[in-house]
Amino acid sequence: MEKEIVKLISDAGSVAIYPHVSADGDAIGSSLALGMALRNAGKRVEIFIEEDIPTVYRFLPGLELAGFHNEEDETADLNIALDTGDVGRLGSRAEFFFKAPCSINIDHHITNTKYAHLNFVDALSASTGEIIYSLLLELNIPINTDIAVCLYTAIATDTGGFQYQNTTADTHRIVAELLSTGINVGEVSQRIYDNTTYEKLKLNARAINLLELYENAKLAVVTLSLEDIQSTGAKEEDCDGIVNIGRSIESVEVSVLIKERSKNEARINLRSKTYVDVSEVAAAFDGGGHTRAAGCTVNGSLEEVKGKIIEAIKDKL
Amino acid sequence: MEKEIVKLISDAGSVAIYPHVSADGDAIGSSLALGMALRNAGKRVEIFIEEDIPTVYRFLPGLELAGFHNEEDETADLNIALDTGDVGRLGSRAEFFFKAPCSINIDHHITNTKYAHLNFVDALSASTGEIIYSLLLELNIPINTDIAVCLYTAIATDTGGFQYQNTTADTHRIVAELLSTGINVGEVSQRIYDNTTYEKLKLNARAINLLELYENAKLAVVTLSLEDIQSTGAKEEDCDGIVNIGRSIESVEVSVLIKERSKNEARINLRSKTYVDVSEVAAAFDGGGHTRAAGCTVNGSLEEVKGKIIEAIKDKL
Repeated sequence: MEKEIVKLISDAGSVAIYPHVSADGDAIGSSLALGMALRNAGKRVEIFIEEDIPTVYRFLPGLELAGFHNEEDETADLNIALDTGDVGRLGSRAEFFFKAPCSINIDHHITNTKYAHLNFVDALSASTGEIIYSLLLELNIPINTDIAVCLYTAIATDTGGFQYQNTTADTHRIVAELLSTGINVGEVSQRIYDNTTYEKLKLNARAINLLELYENAKLAVVTLSLEDIQSTGAKEEDCDGIVNIGRSIESVEVSVLIKERSKNEARINLRSKTYVDVSEVAAAFDGGGHTRAAGCTVNGSLEEVKGKIIEAIKDKL
Repeated sequence: MEKEIVKLISDAGSVAIYPHVSADGDAIGSSLALGMALRNAGKRVEIFIEEDIPTVYRFLPGLELAGFHNEEDETADLNIALDTGDVGRLGSRAEFFFKAPCSINIDHHITNTKYAHLNFVDALSASTGEIIYSLLLELNIPINTDIAVCLYTAIATDTGGFQYQNTTADTHRIVAELLSTGINVGEVSQRIYDNTTYEKLKLNARAINLLELYENAKLAVVTLSLEDIQSTGAKEEDCDGIVNIGRSIESVEVSVLIKERSKNEARINLRSKTYVDVSEVAAAFDGGGHTRAAGCTVNGSLEEVKGKIIEAIKDKL
């Protein structure tokens, strides 16, 4: 981390921290960890959130530092945005963010637009939590169990439980140090991962029952109508992980979720395991993405869309 | 590790390795890692398995070392049992195991009966994989990517993806070293975790649809009849993770699986999250287990059993 950033934080009397909108485990965990550490170092700290902290993260320590911004709030010496790739991700707090005499942007997204006075973007870090860990070392602020739990949550969630490709040797090295502060791994894992809703489970069951296998069980397709989603009481966002259900089957190489958007339009999510480039499939329908995860929007009835997608994939299997 | 064990392995010209029956990721990963390392050190190595290597682990390197024991097989200088708590877990290979001039037992199960000539049991290790890692360091055998992938698989599977309570700072420190050999974490994780069957998914969907919530959604109960299991084409062992489905719901403290065994008997699996001691519930029905995971067998029809179990739990919630 640049010495200038470390010195600015070290010298500030008051600091305001900004996680991104729709804050996830990394944004919240990093913000709480940095907030508690700076408070322990004697600074006045506030964390300005855009929405309520999601229920799943309400077990984390330091929540008393987080709140909504009021017009009467004094401007802090230093505003720090965490895990926030661009100004749009500051939401309604953007104006206030730039009011401080100095602003810092700390992030790990390679697409970060470097919108603050000082910017530290490390795209090799799997999470902002890892960057905050190193920052606290440089600031010489001890990492107690409370801070460690928040950083652990940040890192574990952004690496998909240390499973994603972004997980590095450094990720595990940092987590080792965090665990040695005395974190209860079993309990924290449960808090982070065991947080589904009954409705989401019902939607998963519906998806499993609708799942079809093609091409010698190498292709899994789930087709969800609006009616399917609504009848389980699940929310739109509950569809997020459904494409992974098909991929979890041993024989499957490509998993597809076809989700009805309207009578004549469907959103397609594509995942592959080892050899099919699904970004090519998506591109054929003007969509985009990566080799193993891509998406597109296709016109037609659900049955028509399914036919088109299977046709586009089957020669690649 | 005792110097004597390291020296014996170091001096041996031929070594036979024995994972336990129904070998899991730790037994297989540890055996392949040690086997490849000793082969690289110039020894003749065989891994004697009890059953075929499960499909999920067939991506691992070193499989050519594994095979079934034949009557004609020469006795090795040294037989090493890995992750094997007692002689029973050697299955049909037990007799052959004790024929070598010297046998070593390396394990992390606290219940290990120390049945070999030399025994190294480290119950603080989350996995046998971690012990093998340290052993290879002591033997001065380089850990290449192939060996690292096997050890990673051993450690990741026995810690439930680093989520279980047994995961330590050392676990992560060792994994950091393994990753620095160049493991493809994303691909290996997928191989390890994305290996369900269509039938098991169907059983999960059935379980979700049968799931009932009681006591303000703090108690989840799934009651599976023999017919429920058979109709999905799933196997008995596919029921293993079902009790975790209920526990994954945010509001749930206790999750129960009631599985029909016969017309008048059911097997009960109990899990809790933070405050109910389910071993007490199990004990009331002459069962046993731990605070957060326990089980018992109860007589009666499924409906009767369900009534008894709910009655036994509800005052604890």
